[in-house]
Amino acid sequence: MKISILTLFPEMFESVFNTSIIKRAIDNNLVDIECINIRDFTNDKHSHVDDTPFGGGKGMLIQCQPVLDALSIIRTKDSHVILMSPVGIKFNQKYARKFSNYKHLIIICGHYEGIDARVYKYVDELVSIGDYILTGGELGAMVISDAIIRLQTGVIEEESHQDESFENGLLEYPQYTKPQDYNGDLVPEVLLSGHHENIRKYRLKESLRLTKNNRPDLLIGRAFTDEELALLDEIENE
Amino acid sequence: MKISILTLFPEMFESVFNTSIIKRAIDNNLVDIECINIRDFTNDKHSHVDDTPFGGGKGMLIQCQPVLDALSIIRTKDSHVILMSPVGIKFNQKYARKFSNYKHLIIICGHYEGIDARVYKYVDELVSIGDYILTGGELGAMVISDAIIRLQTGVIEEESHQDESFENGLLEYPQYTKPQDYNGDLVPEVLLSGHHENIRKYRLKESLRLTKNNRPDLLIGRAFTDEELALLDEIENE
Repeated sequence: MKISILTLFPEMFESVFNTSIIKRAIDNNLVDIECINIRDFTNDKHSHVDDTPFGGGKGMLIQCQPVLDALSIIRTKDSHVILMSPVGIKFNQKYARKFSNYKHLIIICGHYEGIDARVYKYVDELVSIGDYILTGGELGAMVISDAIIRLQTGVIEEESHQDESFENGLLEYPQYTKPQDYNGDLVPEVLLSGHHENIRKYRLKESLRLTKNNRPDLLIGRAFTDEELALLDEIENE
Repeated sequence: MKISILTLFPEMFESVFNTSIIKRAIDNNLVDIECINIRDFTNDKHSHVDDTPFGGGKGMLIQCQPVLDALSIIRTKDSHVILMSPVGIKFNQKYARKFSNYKHLIIICGHYEGIDARVYKYVDELVSIGDYILTGGELGAMVISDAIIRLQTGVIEEESHQDESFENGLLEYPQYTKPQDYNGDLVPEVLLSGHHENIRKYRLKESLRLTKNNRPDLLIGRAFTDEELALLDEIENE
């Protein structure tokens, strides 16, 4: 898979793509990432890429010309083009799975007040990573890149994905590692039992409990198994 | 305001905090950020900070000792401590406003499979930036830092915040800049009229339209003004 990021700040990505799992995926040719500077495509003789908004208002908007000229050069028939924007659809793990299957993902990053809205019709989707405002689309592009790179075959062990939060509509159960006793605070005994079925059941129950407490919205409209319903009853009655 | 980030990858933050608005805020002493390496606090003679999960499962978990020893040293009575986790409460612009008022925010980043759950009770909040899985908490810490730094007085012009997405429960209206005619694609005429009241009304209507189309969930339970209700009617009947 190839990811092309269009940004005014390509240097912002350096330390992020040079660390840990993402770096290893790039080094092992499991993904190819390029950061392209929108400013390189401006026709303005002073290299300006932004101007004030029509109708008044604070801040500067990135103009159509450099963005769309850059896009027309890097876009191929295999490209899926997204624009980072707080007004977009909300990115989640389902979109991560969907985006991870594209051969070529192009991510356009606004900065400051954003990008001239006439750009919208040239992209496939406007995408937001959450209901908050950031100084630019760059962090969103990093988040989306990270979420889809870790889903590429060979990047992390397949089994790691199975019990992750959101994969089955629930938050992941709490996990514990050594030591068994940390200043008197003990690991739940069932996890030391070696009894696989009890461990599975305990984890499913704690997963349901955590979701019920922290993210009840995830449970609305979800189809539950009989076992899950029985465990939810147990939690209610504790 | 001071932000302390506890992470196994402090170098991952360098290029992000060295760019654009965040860099300027740091340079102007409007915010103080430190990235602290959890590994510096391990008691393990081989400097290991992680181990396998009890009860089985793939991946490695960060242990209690280095995280809690680091936390006990940097925490003061003014500190608010959050742990990045997909099982946490979902960060949004309201939390950004709330967090931006703390004197000292400590952000703990897990990596790989996460952190031993016994750490949870030592923190004030578990926080998630969205319903997707990342390779670590570092990108979340960057997102939260960015969202709250731009709200600090003096970082960007106050007026820029007023019409932003989520500030009034709606997505922001589309914006346009020069040229007025981009390959035959024109800026909406009202924005060139100089008629402030018409411009305000047009923008409110487009804000409502965009929210209705892209994020109808934001409109559920929202209190509308009479003007907003009339504009929504207009949109319905177009």
